[in-house]
Amino acid sequence: MTDTLRIAVIGAGYWGPNLVRNFRASPRWDLVAIHDLDVDRARRLAGDGVRVYGALDDLLADDAVDAVAIATPAATHHSIARAALAAGKHVLVEKPLADTSERGRSMVQDALDRSLVLMTDHTYCYTPAVLKIRELITDGHLGEILFIDSVRINLGLVQPDVDVFWDLAPHDLSIIDFILPGGLHPLTVSALGADPLSSGKACIGYLALPLPGGAVAHVHVNWLSPTKIRQMIVGGSRRTLVWDDLNPQQRVSVYDRGVDLDLQVLDGAERSAATVSYRLGDTWSPALPETEALAAMVSEFADAIRAKREPRTDGGAGLRVLSILEAASRSLVAGGAAVSPDAVRESVLVGEPPRG
Amino acid sequence: MTDTLRIAVIGAGYWGPNLVRNFRASPRWDLVAIHDLDVDRARRLAGDGVRVYGALDDLLADDAVDAVAIATPAATHHSIARAALAAGKHVLVEKPLADTSERGRSMVQDALDRSLVLMTDHTYCYTPAVLKIRELITDGHLGEILFIDSVRINLGLVQPDVDVFWDLAPHDLSIIDFILPGGLHPLTVSALGADPLSSGKACIGYLALPLPGGAVAHVHVNWLSPTKIRQMIVGGSRRTLVWDDLNPQQRVSVYDRGVDLDLQVLDGAERSAATVSYRLGDTWSPALPETEALAAMVSEFADAIRAKREPRTDGGAGLRVLSILEAASRSLVAGGAAVSPDAVRESVLVGEPPRG
Amino acid sequence: MTDTLRIAVIGAGYWGPNLVRNFRASPRWDLVAIHDLDVDRARRLAGDGVRVYGALDDLLADDAVDAVAIATPAATHHSIARAALAAGKHVLVEKPLADTSERGRSMVQDALDRSLVLMTDHTYCYTPAVLKIRELITDGHLGEILFIDSVRINLGLVQPDVDVFWDLAPHDLSIIDFILPGGLHPLTVSALGADPLSSGKACIGYLALPLPGGAVAHVHVNWLSPTKIRQMIVGGSRRTLVWDDLNPQQRVSVYDRGVDLDLQVLDGAERSAATVSYRLGDTWSPALPETEALAAMVSEFADAIRAKREPRTDGGAGLRVLSILEAASRSLVAGGAAVSPDAVRESVLVGEPPRG
Amino acid sequence: MTDTLRIAVIGAGYWGPNLVRNFRASPRWDLVAIHDLDVDRARRLAGDGVRVYGALDDLLADDAVDAVAIATPAATHHSIARAALAAGKHVLVEKPLADTSERGRSMVQDALDRSLVLMTDHTYCYTPAVLKIRELITDGHLGEILFIDSVRINLGLVQPDVDVFWDLAPHDLSIIDFILPGGLHPLTVSALGADPLSSGKACIGYLALPLPGGAVAHVHVNWLSPTKIRQMIVGGSRRTLVWDDLNPQQRVSVYDRGVDLDLQVLDGAERSAATVSYRLGDTWSPALPETEALAAMVSEFADAIRAKREPRTDGGAGLRVLSILEAASRSLVAGGAAVSPDAVRESVLVGEPPRG
Repeated sequence: MTDTLRIAVIGAGYWGPNLVRNFRASPRWDLVAIHDLDVDRARRLAGDGVRVYGALDDLLADDAVDAVAIATPAATHHSIARAALAAGKHVLVEKPLADTSERGRSMVQDALDRSLVLMTDHTYCYTPAVLKIRELITDGHLGEILFIDSVRINLGLVQPDVDVFWDLAPHDLSIIDFILPGGLHPLTVSALGADPLSSGKACIGYLALPLPGGAVAHVHVNWLSPTKIRQMIVGGSRRTLVWDDLNPQQRVSVYDRGVDLDLQVLDGAERSAATVSYRLGDTWSPALPETEALAAMVSEFADAIRAKREPRTDGGAGLRVLSILEAASRSLVAGGAAVSPDAVRESVLVGEPPRG
Repeated sequence: MTDTLRIAVIGAGYWGPNLVRNFRASPRWDLVAIHDLDVDRARRLAGDGVRVYGALDDLLADDAVDAVAIATPAATHHSIARAALAAGKHVLVEKPLADTSERGRSMVQDALDRSLVLMTDHTYCYTPAVLKIRELITDGHLGEILFIDSVRINLGLVQPDVDVFWDLAPHDLSIIDFILPGGLHPLTVSALGADPLSSGKACIGYLALPLPGGAVAHVHVNWLSPTKIRQMIVGGSRRTLVWDDLNPQQRVSVYDRGVDLDLQVLDGAERSAATVSYRLGDTWSPALPETEALAAMVSEFADAIRAKREPRTDGGAGLRVLSILEAASRSLVAGGAAVSPDAVRESVLVGEPPRG
Repeated sequence: MTDTLRIAVIGAGYWGPNLVRNFRASPRWDLVAIHDLDVDRARRLAGDGVRVYGALDDLLADDAVDAVAIATPAATHHSIARAALAAGKHVLVEKPLADTSERGRSMVQDALDRSLVLMTDHTYCYTPAVLKIRELITDGHLGEILFIDSVRINLGLVQPDVDVFWDLAPHDLSIIDFILPGGLHPLTVSALGADPLSSGKACIGYLALPLPGGAVAHVHVNWLSPTKIRQMIVGGSRRTLVWDDLNPQQRVSVYDRGVDLDLQVLDGAERSAATVSYRLGDTWSPALPETEALAAMVSEFADAIRAKREPRTDGGAGLRVLSILEAASRSLVAGGAAVSPDAVRESVLVGEPPRG
Repeated sequence: MTDTLRIAVIGAGYWGPNLVRNFRASPRWDLVAIHDLDVDRARRLAGDGVRVYGALDDLLADDAVDAVAIATPAATHHSIARAALAAGKHVLVEKPLADTSERGRSMVQDALDRSLVLMTDHTYCYTPAVLKIRELITDGHLGEILFIDSVRINLGLVQPDVDVFWDLAPHDLSIIDFILPGGLHPLTVSALGADPLSSGKACIGYLALPLPGGAVAHVHVNWLSPTKIRQMIVGGSRRTLVWDDLNPQQRVSVYDRGVDLDLQVLDGAERSAATVSYRLGDTWSPALPETEALAAMVSEFADAIRAKREPRTDGGAGLRVLSILEAASRSLVAGGAAVSPDAVRESVLVGEPPRG
């Protein structure tokens, strides 16, 4: 392996150019090849010194490629990723990880078996705001997490192939998975969808996710709202955080106020009437750097390979998001009943760490 | 009956003084009596010319009282209201109508049997904003209602006796019931609650209410949010309305933008791929008068009695709200399962109109 | 003097009832008398045990009155205050202190000569927000004050007797005077007014106040704005503060960001091109107590009398505001030319402290 | 002249690439040449089929160039524009038109003498918001303009060569000039600047511009504000408009509320006490298209040449802005005194229309 890592980008469509631009700009990476079935499109995206492949097999046979970034339709992720892993390449996959959690699981297993890095491109997780939220939770600033309420609504394009859950909720779910220590593991998933336009799929969605310990996460996604809201409230036992992504002047606010509950023990028994008190403290809004999320994401991919460790948004993160979306779809069919997400089987996660 | 109607207020505690002040100021009413078990308290509230009763029976035997307003604890509403109706008085009841829908139903039946007005004091419905929203829906300005999303969150007092649903959701439910033509009749009720403080009751609540025709209503109530939000989005097929009750400069905004779906019929079959188009029209914010809700409410009570008609927020409205809250409690116990609210039996609603 | 101080309120019109309510509620005061030329109005405002005077002389001859609060039209302040001081009463005067600075000055001199407290009721200065701003400046949190920009605009009542400067700017000027250590002493005053409705007086006003050391204060007052803005920016060398009085959830924000200028000395000479650097730090919003300004104001009046010290908003403060308003009027006549406010003559401020 | 017009861009530095991109994308234009003293930089910007000139004379001698766009430092505008006009080219000049109004005036005269189009690139005027504001004023929707208040403040780069007036106010002035029928012609200019950092130039600026008929315009520019505000209030006799450029969801709001003044004539004399009344009407926010301002600007340049008419932001507009900035500088030196802008001499504006 050379000093910088060598990346090939697979797919020159909508997202590919963003990846190309960031890999090209990164000091950790050399962009060495681009693949697209439409060779002309690949060629337009490539510059001097970047090889263009029309056949995937040729690209994967290229020993001067350390890793591939897959930016193709979801239905193709599984076969391309497996072939790339089999060829010994580290793999970055556009979200969602795969079109089914079954297939996602086999990708994660393959990467483990070969000690290769499999990373999901959950871009939002690398924005300065989300990185700061994760840090504030990790260092205990918010205390124990009690609830997360996420709203992502706007007048949106009714997608031809996916409903509003699969279109928008991956953002919320991947972010919640990223900021919660240990990831997002809801006890059950209850989904309520509405299709008031009779478009054939849910355009409004509510996702309720009870968490262990009495906490709860809730996601509201909506294509039909004339006002745009992107807000997440993260309630903790010590402080509560509000992330308003549409307020560039104050994206993240941390409120040192809340409700304290003193459960007093009286004669060995818990009093039914607990004493409630309120803290009305200051609000604090941390300064956030002006960095591009994709640049941080491609750095993390390189760092994980170098350090032979799992990346921050690994295949498991992609798999958890996928499992919850699948559970949501099952809950929708069952009239909103609470269903269990397929557990990410522990066996899958056992194996050797990436070998870098 | 004299030219103005004669009212007695029962209960001189938290809400009673507000009623007293508004009945006193109304040209439609003469405040003639006040009852409270604490006679001193009643006396302090009364002024010259207002009789004070320590015994309810004495008040109800007073022929110079046309109607009573009940502002006592919910558990007492049923017995007081029935006695008042039996004594031939029209009745205004503080929300909630009763402590159980069973009891509420018998109150509604009693009023029907006696052709008396039974009104629920859903004060919020008489704010200028809600009256305007009702008007815009009724006159077709918004088109068919597709979805209603209501958020009412704040750092709130954890109540000793009720959970967050019973504390806050009556506001949202009574408003939605008021603005929807025909009232709020959800197909099912699904409630998700969380009690992350282990206070013994839900402090965070989500209420999903599928409506006939594919529409949906959703309510988010929360005692643990450090930011205060009181926002309702009413999505219609023609326009969408946003009510932001904390923005006095622009409480109600009507957006002439949305998604249009053209389901085209091709060879007798509906095309699977519908044509979606977007309207990006103007926003309009109606001027609202600066009137007090309670003043409008006491006027409506008088007008309904005079006109021998049901008031805008009648006993049936109170009963529908009660039924949904009870269904929410059952859904909570059932782990968020969709349950049916007790239908307000049609027989109840049959009877002679109020005789004024 | 008794344990609590004894106050008489002079004037039972618009503002008097607010004073009465707060003096009545204060543990530091006994409300003992009310005077109004309209004795009936005074009587309605008084309660049991409060004497009512129709003649001012009678009230001033009442030995059981320690202090008076004057809430009469500005043109009468001078004669009433002088008579009260001559009678040995401490005096609180509604803003503006007087109708001319000449008269205000004689009031201040009288109080000094008699060692009595003369206080101006600059109510806004006792709001939690302004008290906090003063504290942050005093303790050096903001550094040296570089600029203050105050905007107070709304659709306002065109006043019959005063222009927009005299109607609204006293608020801004008294606040700026209060928060600046040593008070507000502009080098000059430049006023631009506009009367686009030909109402006969300025309805829009801009007031520019260069301060010693290169700093500047600026005030924008406006009766014709359809949007309501009440915002003050206080720029300091260390931090900058924004007070948005219409945002109850975050009234005061302190920004730890700004521009730093390093003027480097090179070979004994100042470099023409200074090095500019930016700090992009956190934002912090202090929690503010929910206290009523008038309650704090009447407490301060009592405390100043007790401690035989000048109150926070003393006669000098009222005089400085008056001098600037007069200078503004002269500047208006002179087409916006910079004019000097009449210096508050030092001799005036010499004398014995209040004797309490 | 061919079917499309042929443009050459002069200057490949900061702004040039934006012009190149927009001329290239416009159906009205053929980009045929680029000039920069740094030929390599010009070459990098040019593509296939675009000529690169290192010498300005060579470019101006190119008969296959109809018009030039000058994006060089302000001090060079005059000599380049005069040479281009002498060579028979239409000219678009980056703002400011020139470094002195004297020079700007000679450029305008030259264009008139030769019947060529001279246009100033006041880009902001071509944003959808400003175009809409101009339209609403022109069609009488706002009534007579009473006042304009413009605030443009932010933490900004202290510029090495210009003060905050010359850096930021050209935006406000060019916009106000654009929306006012007949352009911006203040009676006088009063400028207050502050340099609290001792940077050697004003970092905070207030500009007061009395207009004919009692109206007023006011501009506040500031490099030292930690909060970013870009707001313009345009008060009219019928309605008032607020443009908040940082609120993408509602940039332009039109308020149908205001103050009406009825000056009644009594016995042939105007009553001193006018009757004031208030309108509290609706708010309306027009939908704005999502178009790029620069694209509209280059279209206007072509259309003016084609139609042999003055462009919307012609040389005269650039000259008026320049004259006000120069007057502001003189006012600053004179301690804020009101000074008259050099009148754009009528003789200058006489001449033949552009010949296209």
